[in-house]
Amino acid sequence: MPPLIEYDDATPEVRAVYDDILTTRKTDYINNLWKALAHHPPTLRRTWERVKSIMGEPGTIDPLTRELIYIAVSVTNNCTYCVATHTAAATNKGMTPEMFGELMAIVGLANETNRLANGYRVEVDERYR
Amino acid sequence: MPPLIEYDDATPEVRAVYDDILTTRKTDYINNLWKALAHHPPTLRRTWERVKSIMGEPGTIDPLTRELIYIAVSVTNNCTYCVATHTAAATNKGMTPEMFGELMAIVGLANETNRLANGYRVEVDERYR
Amino acid sequence: MPPLIEYDDATPEVRAVYDDILTTRKTDYINNLWKALAHHPPTLRRTWERVKSIMGEPGTIDPLTRELIYIAVSVTNNCTYCVATHTAAATNKGMTPEMFGELMAIVGLANETNRLANGYRVEVDERYR
Amino acid sequence: MPPLIEYDDATPEVRAVYDDILTTRKTDYINNLWKALAHHPPTLRRTWERVKSIMGEPGTIDPLTRELIYIAVSVTNNCTYCVATHTAAATNKGMTPEMFGELMAIVGLANETNRLANGYRVEVDERYR
Amino acid sequence: MPPLIEYDDATPEVRAVYDDILTTRKTDYINNLWKALAHHPPTLRRTWERVKSIMGEPGTIDPLTRELIYIAVSVTNNCTYCVATHTAAATNKGMTPEMFGELMAIVGLANETNRLANGYRVEVDERYR
Amino acid sequence: MPPLIEYDDATPEVRAVYDDILTTRKTDYINNLWKALAHHPPTLRRTWERVKSIMGEPGTIDPLTRELIYIAVSVTNNCTYCVATHTAAATNKGMTPEMFGELMAIVGLANETNRLANGYRVEVDERYR
Repeated sequence: MPPLIEYDDATPEVRAVYDDILTTRKTDYINNLWKALAHHPPTLRRTWERVKSIMGEPGTIDPLTRELIYIAVSVTNNCTYCVATHTAAATNKGMTPEMFGELMAIVGLANETNRLANGYRVEVDERYR
Repeated sequence: MPPLIEYDDATPEVRAVYDDILTTRKTDYINNLWKALAHHPPTLRRTWERVKSIMGEPGTIDPLTRELIYIAVSVTNNCTYCVATHTAAATNKGMTPEMFGELMAIVGLANETNRLANGYRVEVDERYR
Repeated sequence: MPPLIEYDDATPEVRAVYDDILTTRKTDYINNLWKALAHHPPTLRRTWERVKSIMGEPGTIDPLTRELIYIAVSVTNNCTYCVATHTAAATNKGMTPEMFGELMAIVGLANETNRLANGYRVEVDERYR
Repeated sequence: MPPLIEYDDATPEVRAVYDDILTTRKTDYINNLWKALAHHPPTLRRTWERVKSIMGEPGTIDPLTRELIYIAVSVTNNCTYCVATHTAAATNKGMTPEMFGELMAIVGLANETNRLANGYRVEVDERYR
Repeated sequence: MPPLIEYDDATPEVRAVYDDILTTRKTDYINNLWKALAHHPPTLRRTWERVKSIMGEPGTIDPLTRELIYIAVSVTNNCTYCVATHTAAATNKGMTPEMFGELMAIVGLANETNRLANGYRVEVDERYR
Repeated sequence: MPPLIEYDDATPEVRAVYDDILTTRKTDYINNLWKALAHHPPTLRRTWERVKSIMGEPGTIDPLTRELIYIAVSVTNNCTYCVATHTAAATNKGMTPEMFGELMAIVGLANETNRLANGYRVEVDERYR
C-alpha cells in the first residue's frame, strides 16, 4: 500500500487541508486516511470538504446520530478502517457500549430483513410507494 | 413470487403473529413482508419478535434514530422494499424531508469513503485499534 | 435495456449455444439471460459452459443443494432475476416451501452475524486460522 | 476492538448463554464472536437462540448443507471471521476439500451471473414471476 | 417515492444547478436523479459539483473510460438507475455493444475472483503489499 | 486457511496450469491465488482460462483499462487481495499515481450516487430504458 504522507513531507496544497483538519477538529492528529488520500490532492480536498460539511455543519440530525449512521453503513460494507475510526468518533461524542450494542442489533436486523424481502420478492405495498 | 397470505387464510399460528403486530403497532394493516414470511411460520415469528424487541422496546437509542439507521443499511444494500417501508415509518415518527436529505448525504459519504479506505488499503491507526 | 435475441434471429455461433442449452436441459425454452448475453457471443459461450459444468456435471454436492447455494448468493446480492430463475430451478429439483423458508432463515442469519462480526471487529480464533 | 469477555469475568446472564453453548455443542470452547457479543447481553442471547434453532434444530435441510449455505453468504459478504469458523464447522460435519472447491465454484459463478443479469438489465421471464 | 421537481417548480438555488447542468452538458434535458436530489439542495449542489469535476474535467483517464468504470461499480452494486443512465452516457461517448460485452465479462470475472480470494482466504503476496 | 500448493508439490494437472501462467505472463512467479485454487484443479483451470482470455486476449478495451475496471470492482467489494494484485498489474501496464487517484475518485463517486438513487428510489428516465 502507498506510504502515508506526513505533514513535514506534504506539499503546500496538502498542508492547507491538514491545517484545516487540525483547526476544525481541535486536534493535533491527522488520521491515516487523510495521509493516504494526500497522494491525490483533489480527492483529499474534496473528501475533506464534504466530511467537514456533512458531518460537522449545523443540521437537523445531531452529531452523534450522524456517527451512528456512518457506522451502520461501514459495518454493512465491512470497512474495518471506517468502523474503527467512526466508533472512536462516536464514543467521543457520547456513544456508550450499550448504545453500540443496540446499534449493532439494528444493523444486524436490517441486513437480515433486507434479504428476507429479496428472497420472497415482496412487492412494495400500495400505500408505501 | 409466492402469493401473500391474508389474515382470513392464515393458520392460527400465523394469525397469532398478525394479531400481535396489529396490537403492538396500533394499526389495522399488515405489511406485505409479514404476509410473505407467513409461508414459513417459524421465520415469521422469529423475525417479528426481533423487530418488536429491537425496534420497539425501550433503549438508549430513540425510535426515530433507529429508523434512520435501518434506512441507512437498506439504502446501502439497495433493498427497495425496506427503504420504502422504513422511510414511511420514519416519517411517521417525525423525519422531515430535510432530515432525509441529510441522512442520504451521510449514507452517500460513508459509501464513498469506505471505498477510498479500501482502495488505498489504509491501515487502522494505532490509536483506534 | 438491449432487446433479447430470439433463436430465429441468432447467428450460427449463438444458435450453437442455444441448441446445447435446449439439449442439455431437455427443454424447449431459452431463458432471457441467455438471449441477452447473446449480444456478446464469447460471454454467452463461456458463461453457459461454466453453468453447464459447475451446475450440471457429476460432483460431490447434489444438484438441489447447488441451487440452494446459488439462491443464497443471489438473495444476498439482491439479484431479482437470479432469485426468480433459480428458485424455479430448485423447485423443479424438489425444493419445498418449507425448505425455501429454512434457506431464507439461514441466509438472513448469516447476513446478520456477518455484520455483528464486522462491527465488533472480532479476530479469528487461533484454532480456526 | 473491545476486549473479549471470558467465562470467569462474565455476568450470570452471559454465563447462562455460555453454558447453553457449551452444553448444546458438546464442547469446552466458546468462540470469540460470543465473547465479543457478551458486551451486549440481549444481542448475545438473541443471536445464540437463533443460531441454536436455525442451524441446530431438526428440519428439511441437513446440517452440513446449512453450513455450506452459511459459507456461501459469508464469502459473498467477505466476512473473514464467519468464513473461517463456518469452514471449520462444515469440515467437522463432513465437508471435504473437494466439496469446498465445488462450493467456491458455485459461489463464484453466482456472483458473476448476478452481475451479468444486472448489467444487461434482464427482465424476469414471464414464467418465473 | 418523492415527486420529481421540475424546472418550473424549482427554487432559484435549484434552478442555478439545473442551469449549470444544461450548460455544461449542452443539453435541454435534466435527468430524474437531479430532479429527485432537488428535494435537498445542498446534496444536489455538492453531488453535481463532484460529477462535473470528476467525470468532466481534464485528467489522465479519458471520458469514455470514466464511464466504463462508473458502470462497473454500478453493476456490482446492482443500481439499475445508474447502469441505465451511464450505459447511455458511455454509448454517447463511443462505447460499442462489443465493448459493453467485454466490460461485462471483466466485471463478472472480478466479482467471481473476489469471492474465490475471500473463500480461500488468500494472503497478499509479500511482493504486492 | 489452506496451505499454498507450490510448484514442486503440484500434481501434473496443476503444473500444466502453472506452466501456462508462467509462459503466458513471461514471469517466474505464481501468485498466491493460483496456489490456493490448486486445491481444486477444475476451478484453477477454469479460472485461469477465463483470466487469460478476458484479461489477455485482443479486444476493444485496452489492457490497462481492463485493469482499472478490475480494480473498480475489487475496491467496491472490498477484496484486499484483488486490489493489491491488480493495482500492481495496472502499475506494470502504465497506471500512474495520478491515474489511481482519479480512479478512486470515480469509484467513490459511483458508490455514493448509487445510494442516492436507491434512497430517493429514482425511476429510470423514459429515454434511458
